Amino acid sequence: MPIDDITATLPLVDHHCHGLFPADLDDERLADSLSEAFAPAPPGTSHWDKPVALSVRRRCAPVLDLEPFCAPAAYAERRRAIGAVAVNRRFLAASGIGTYIVDSGNRPEELCSVSEVGAIAGAPAREIVRMESVAERVAESGMSAGGFARAFEAALRGSLGEGVGGLKSILAYRATLRIDYGKPSDAEVETAAGRWLAEIEETGTVRLTDPVLERHLIWTGADIARERGFPIQFHIGIGDPDIELHRVDPSHLTPWIKAVEPWGFPITLLHCYPFHREAGLMAENFPQVYFDVGFALNWMGPSYQRIMDEALELVPFTKQLFSTDAFGLAELYYMGALRFRTALARALGRWVEDDECSVAEAERIAAMIGVENARRIYKV
Amino acid sequence: MPIDDITATLPLVDHHCHGLFPADLDDERLADSLSEAFAPAPPGTSHWDKPVALSVRRRCAPVLDLEPFCAPAAYAERRRAIGAVAVNRRFLAASGIGTYIVDSGNRPEELCSVSEVGAIAGAPAREIVRMESVAERVAESGMSAGGFARAFEAALRGSLGEGVGGLKSILAYRATLRIDYGKPSDAEVETAAGRWLAEIEETGTVRLTDPVLERHLIWTGADIARERGFPIQFHIGIGDPDIELHRVDPSHLTPWIKAVEPWGFPITLLHCYPFHREAGLMAENFPQVYFDVGFALNWMGPSYQRIMDEALELVPFTKQLFSTDAFGLAELYYMGALRFRTALARALGRWVEDDECSVAEAERIAAMIGVENARRIYKV
Amino acid sequence: MPIDDITATLPLVDHHCHGLFPADLDDERLADSLSEAFAPAPPGTSHWDKPVALSVRRRCAPVLDLEPFCAPAAYAERRRAIGAVAVNRRFLAASGIGTYIVDSGNRPEELCSVSEVGAIAGAPAREIVRMESVAERVAESGMSAGGFARAFEAALRGSLGEGVGGLKSILAYRATLRIDYGKPSDAEVETAAGRWLAEIEETGTVRLTDPVLERHLIWTGADIARERGFPIQFHIGIGDPDIELHRVDPSHLTPWIKAVEPWGFPITLLHCYPFHREAGLMAENFPQVYFDVGFALNWMGPSYQRIMDEALELVPFTKQLFSTDAFGLAELYYMGALRFRTALARALGRWVEDDECSVAEAERIAAMIGVENARRIYKV
Repeated sequence: MPIDDITATLPLVDHHCHGLFPADLDDERLADSLSEAFAPAPPGTSHWDKPVALSVRRRCAPVLDLEPFCAPAAYAERRRAIGAVAVNRRFLAASGIGTYIVDSGNRPEELCSVSEVGAIAGAPAREIVRMESVAERVAESGMSAGGFARAFEAALRGSLGEGVGGLKSILAYRATLRIDYGKPSDAEVETAAGRWLAEIEETGTVRLTDPVLERHLIWTGADIARERGFPIQFHIGIGDPDIELHRVDPSHLTPWIKAVEPWGFPITLLHCYPFHREAGLMAENFPQVYFDVGFALNWMGPSYQRIMDEALELVPFTKQLFSTDAFGLAELYYMGALRFRTALARALGRWVEDDECSVAEAERIAAMIGVENARRIYKV
Repeated sequence: MPIDDITATLPLVDHHCHGLFPADLDDERLADSLSEAFAPAPPGTSHWDKPVALSVRRRCAPVLDLEPFCAPAAYAERRRAIGAVAVNRRFLAASGIGTYIVDSGNRPEELCSVSEVGAIAGAPAREIVRMESVAERVAESGMSAGGFARAFEAALRGSLGEGVGGLKSILAYRATLRIDYGKPSDAEVETAAGRWLAEIEETGTVRLTDPVLERHLIWTGADIARERGFPIQFHIGIGDPDIELHRVDPSHLTPWIKAVEPWGFPITLLHCYPFHREAGLMAENFPQVYFDVGFALNWMGPSYQRIMDEALELVPFTKQLFSTDAFGLAELYYMGALRFRTALARALGRWVEDDECSVAEAERIAAMIGVENARRIYKV
Repeated sequence: MPIDDITATLPLVDHHCHGLFPADLDDERLADSLSEAFAPAPPGTSHWDKPVALSVRRRCAPVLDLEPFCAPAAYAERRRAIGAVAVNRRFLAASGIGTYIVDSGNRPEELCSVSEVGAIAGAPAREIVRMESVAERVAESGMSAGGFARAFEAALRGSLGEGVGGLKSILAYRATLRIDYGKPSDAEVETAAGRWLAEIEETGTVRLTDPVLERHLIWTGADIARERGFPIQFHIGIGDPDIELHRVDPSHLTPWIKAVEPWGFPITLLHCYPFHREAGLMAENFPQVYFDVGFALNWMGPSYQRIMDEALELVPFTKQLFSTDAFGLAELYYMGALRFRTALARALGRWVEDDECSVAEAERIAAMIGVENARRIYKV
């Protein structure tokens, strides 16, 4: 097989993505979907003037029968002319992704469901349950502080239908990773829950950020992950303005990873940029740790190659995963898969050129990272 | 236009540099100017044996009619033979920089003034006022603790002549970026000023490092930047021995950036290496944040390309800036501009080669980063 | 000299390595030696599926008369068939290392001694004394809390035989680098020693982790290093599961480095990845600071080049060092030297190609980094 083709037909397992926008997007909504800011672009600028948007114009325009680098307005118009349903089908088919593992907990009201992703793609789709979303639903439902811990666990267990393949924590966004990781006592959880419920009462806003409650979530999640033998995913590194980067270095998780290591369930570190080197070393050091650089590959537009190269530096071939982290825009599933295939084939191709790897080994490595590692730990 | 030439004639806006040495330099002073250490090179070594100095020998020697890689002593001698005035003119003319935005607050007694930079270059020069320098002059001038806050604000406003284009904070060097960012009360400022004035009395040294006072400076600066709609610059990352790198990650600034976001004035993160990836993400996340990697491009000698490549990974094309961070040596204006032009043209050239960008888009991107972004926010 | 050859015959000074496994290794022991985890590879995976192991199969197999990329089992068998003594000789001879500077303090019961390394290599070998190992031997030997400080200093001085070239601290693994660095008082040391001795009594485990005691070690070490004018080495960055990466950034050492700067002894930062950029800047800022990226070059298998490229960005040519950090496996001395030679020759070769460096300068730089810097500071 020519080395450039070793990733071309892999039925990738996208171990971390979200649902699709089911309806058409006006110009503004489309532009905002290309930004991690919570704000419009500053006066005199446009959200289209960034790497990921340049790549949408180059790589996605032809999928919609447009010329590369067409104007943003033409792109937005053509997208609506084809219609969201057909656009979603086209990009997902073009992605060649074989299995979708979908986080169902982020802004679900804007997105199609997990099973709809599967239906659009004509491929298996599994669900990841976001623990903070479950806890926030429980808190909203009217609850005493003393009942919170049990109600959360019951709701979390109740959410684990047949298609559920793992849990997710967005601790990084909330209490940050820079916390103590001891398991809180029942009394501590009750006190923290009381504070939180009073805050909800007062502000009308339901947003879990308390470190004690977050610790309760991940320790409860660990119990379940141990029973089921499935992964817990952690958001790491790069994100929106709610992130303070110095608080989301994955190595802050080390004490917790060591504490739950005997339980054996996989821990998958998502995105990781600019801490992907740290994540790779943690995957070397701890048998149950895995990581991906999916979001970054997509979001960097033309600069994706270096991130894959750096991700491959140290990590065992058995511990890296593929993801798109696509959210809403069908373009991001397609482009995430394209970037991953190109970058991995090139990186391994250079190893072969440099006489550091055989083609047979390169094929084996590509299959592990793109498909087999995720199949093994998510049991898909 | 051939892709290599897309940056060749850009009238760059150098949004962060310092004044020039107006007089000739003896061998030792020239060597020391090539070092960030406050000390001579260790026995058996020379400050000329480093990347930036190798590049001076390669790139600057021909501007002085010398052979590339001439011996340091020959370089120093030739520099004096031509004379500082002519040397400064030659390098600034060769740089092709169109506008100079000059920090006037660092060791001004050794450097020419802002308007002299403009006269030597035959180009517009604007001033950036360093807030710590103003505060230190106020403290030296004999002041009661209770009068400090008002006197500082009056002096800062008094320094804002017609040519002033923004303010600068070197918080990173002083209280470090790892502080709380709340606006201090008048009483807190008075107490802190009292402590500082007593310390000055006792030690005879005037150096503002107190975090309460630093917070007073940046909040006062924010008021003014909001009124004038001009930027505040922050030193980030790489610097001299006064820096502790783990305390100067720009993401420590996040709470303050969020607090002043509604005020809309630009915040420019200077240098940033080795945190340029963090800075790029912050420029993506926050509408008013901008950054550059100027100092690093210059200081790395032959290794400049990778830093530009990494700087381009994630940041919107509308949010990156050009700077040389040249201090004293005319060589650094010239070489900083040369490195920037070459690195940006090559990076975008590779995107074009890789079919990730069109030449027209590359030209547009180069003009934004080299010229237009700075023109827009500094109003030059 | 063709540029590719400028490092080929350098008699490298390996300023940081360990002893060799003197006996044959069964399959499991060999595989475990290719991992920094303290655990077997997860079910369905193998420690051979990682970059360093791929490179052993590619680069070391031919030294044992095997085909590149032979199966791990065949490699392990052939290694035993040749026998540990001959295997060790073969790889050390092939490495071309001219001088070995050997840390004698890590798991010495599994490894050959420093003088045996020298005998196997037919080359000079010097010893580095690991201060924590000395302190732990002192604590085990039965000691009163009040006697600890003096007993440690006496034992440390007693260990400084003729072949000793420096001291080493693994503070990063123990109290971490994120500590205060003040010199503790005698009373503080006595109290901390009392706590530690009681803990040893109770647990039967002798492992120094107390920050007060660690501070006592490095300040005692500094006294000695000043007297002898030899280096203290510090473990930095990448390591085994005992490391929390966010606690081992070398810039945490800054206050101590500044405190001992007047004493003039060299401080060498080992490994440094992923903080090699921070280390490079510290070597620029502080006259007595040096660093290497040896461990990383070896452990990354095919991806070594980028680490050398990044290591060369900023650091003066007079401040970078060579090491293999080889531990136990003779392969790692050979491959560490091979990677270093190739990476440095290529990096400098690209500078020459890019017209940024002359061949003569490149040769001079290669000799400094590979040989002369270490000779100067270790006096070998």
